Amino acid sequence: MADALLLDLSGVLYDGDDLVPGALEAVKRAQRSELEVRFVTNTSQKTRASLLQHLRSLGFDLEQAQLFTAVDAARQWLQQRELRPFCIVHENIRGEFDDFEQREPNAVVIADAADGFNYANLNRAFQLCLEGAPLLGVGYNRYFKSGAEVLMDAGAFIVAVEFAAGVKATIVGKPSSEFFHQVLASTSSTPARALMVGDDVFGDVEGALHAGLRACLVRTGKYREGDEARIDGEFALVDSVEGAVELALSGQLTRQC
Amino acid sequence: MADALLLDLSGVLYDGDDLVPGALEAVKRAQRSELEVRFVTNTSQKTRASLLQHLRSLGFDLEQAQLFTAVDAARQWLQQRELRPFCIVHENIRGEFDDFEQREPNAVVIADAADGFNYANLNRAFQLCLEGAPLLGVGYNRYFKSGAEVLMDAGAFIVAVEFAAGVKATIVGKPSSEFFHQVLASTSSTPARALMVGDDVFGDVEGALHAGLRACLVRTGKYREGDEARIDGEFALVDSVEGAVELALSGQLTRQC
Repeated sequence: MADALLLDLSGVLYDGDDLVPGALEAVKRAQRSELEVRFVTNTSQKTRASLLQHLRSLGFDLEQAQLFTAVDAARQWLQQRELRPFCIVHENIRGEFDDFEQREPNAVVIADAADGFNYANLNRAFQLCLEGAPLLGVGYNRYFKSGAEVLMDAGAFIVAVEFAAGVKATIVGKPSSEFFHQVLASTSSTPARALMVGDDVFGDVEGALHAGLRACLVRTGKYREGDEARIDGEFALVDSVEGAVELALSGQLTRQC
Repeated sequence: MADALLLDLSGVLYDGDDLVPGALEAVKRAQRSELEVRFVTNTSQKTRASLLQHLRSLGFDLEQAQLFTAVDAARQWLQQRELRPFCIVHENIRGEFDDFEQREPNAVVIADAADGFNYANLNRAFQLCLEGAPLLGVGYNRYFKSGAEVLMDAGAFIVAVEFAAGVKATIVGKPSSEFFHQVLASTSSTPARALMVGDDVFGDVEGALHAGLRACLVRTGKYREGDEARIDGEFALVDSVEGAVELALSGQLTRQC
């Protein structure tokens, strides 16, 4: 049996306002067991408060401290270094950076900004990085699912600025090992006794494996046929979070495809 | 002595409407010698016709057939494959693709599009590539100089789509070896007897070296202190195109820094 169960949100527990079938019951079952359940997300289109509200309105029962977001990790990173960020972020979460001085920026933050990904913003980020400002990426996701569509995520634009300026971003959130370890520090589990469940074969699965966790890819959310062949390593492949919880409770954590 | 001299345009011969000091005389001197001079550019904010006009208005004397552009190479590539491109290109050169069917696109072209690099266009490109459409990059440049500013170039956005869709672009223009060889095919020179002169250490210098040509980096245009240390390989470093022509005529083609 795994000690800790880390669950990605969008695409694993819900898609927009729709629950993934069986997700609610599966999470309750895990929470009633000895597993320590944590919720981990790179989503940067919602504030922490509205994520919690969304989860609870869907029927999930969790405490504030059980939710770990890449945006929080970005805030901490900036605070520790007392930086003045130029933020390419979604208008929904702009307020999360209100307590930072943003005039004469000396750092760049790139999160999922949707229409904020325009040439003017990206050029400003690039120019700052070229002059030596550190680049902070909120996640490194390639794309996400929005309704029936797939849309480019922050990772693609982080890579664009990295390439143009010839720099390497610091990534907070998944797939950063630091992030996984930070989540686990709130549990009594070790990486080897923890299972990360996600629909993103890179951010969730590859990231978790790299950090020493077990991992499980679900066939919901943004999962596309063949994704499991895109990375190396041993991990499980299940239809949905229901199977992942089953697996966590059974203790059978190795590849199942 | 080199047989062929390949000259990049912007940043080497001129910056906007201003000639690089000594450029006009240097090019004339090269053209009066036995060197076969060619003009090669990835610029995709101007049509071929307006590039020729610009060069001539600055006083350069060249024939149509001596100018090689990445946009032309893109057109040829699409024509040979009878593809229907979705084009992220600058409004100035949109007309260069008017003779292609662009409904129900089955290919993606990314050139320097300036404000055309928006989230909607990039997502469309990404989605087509995810479904298998080939991605054609017009150059792979990281940035270019515009007045006192540096701005992100097509390469950064090609990389973004490559990363998001998990595909590899075909690059036309510099630094593609095919492009350099195509230019040389219009001369009687071999790669080893040709010198490429540019201000872009990746597209011009690294690309040329990779294609088997000699290369010379100039300290004008977008050149930034230390650029010469960003790649491996033997090449010359001179103050401007004047020194590059000197070098081509002298036959001394190895690193000079």
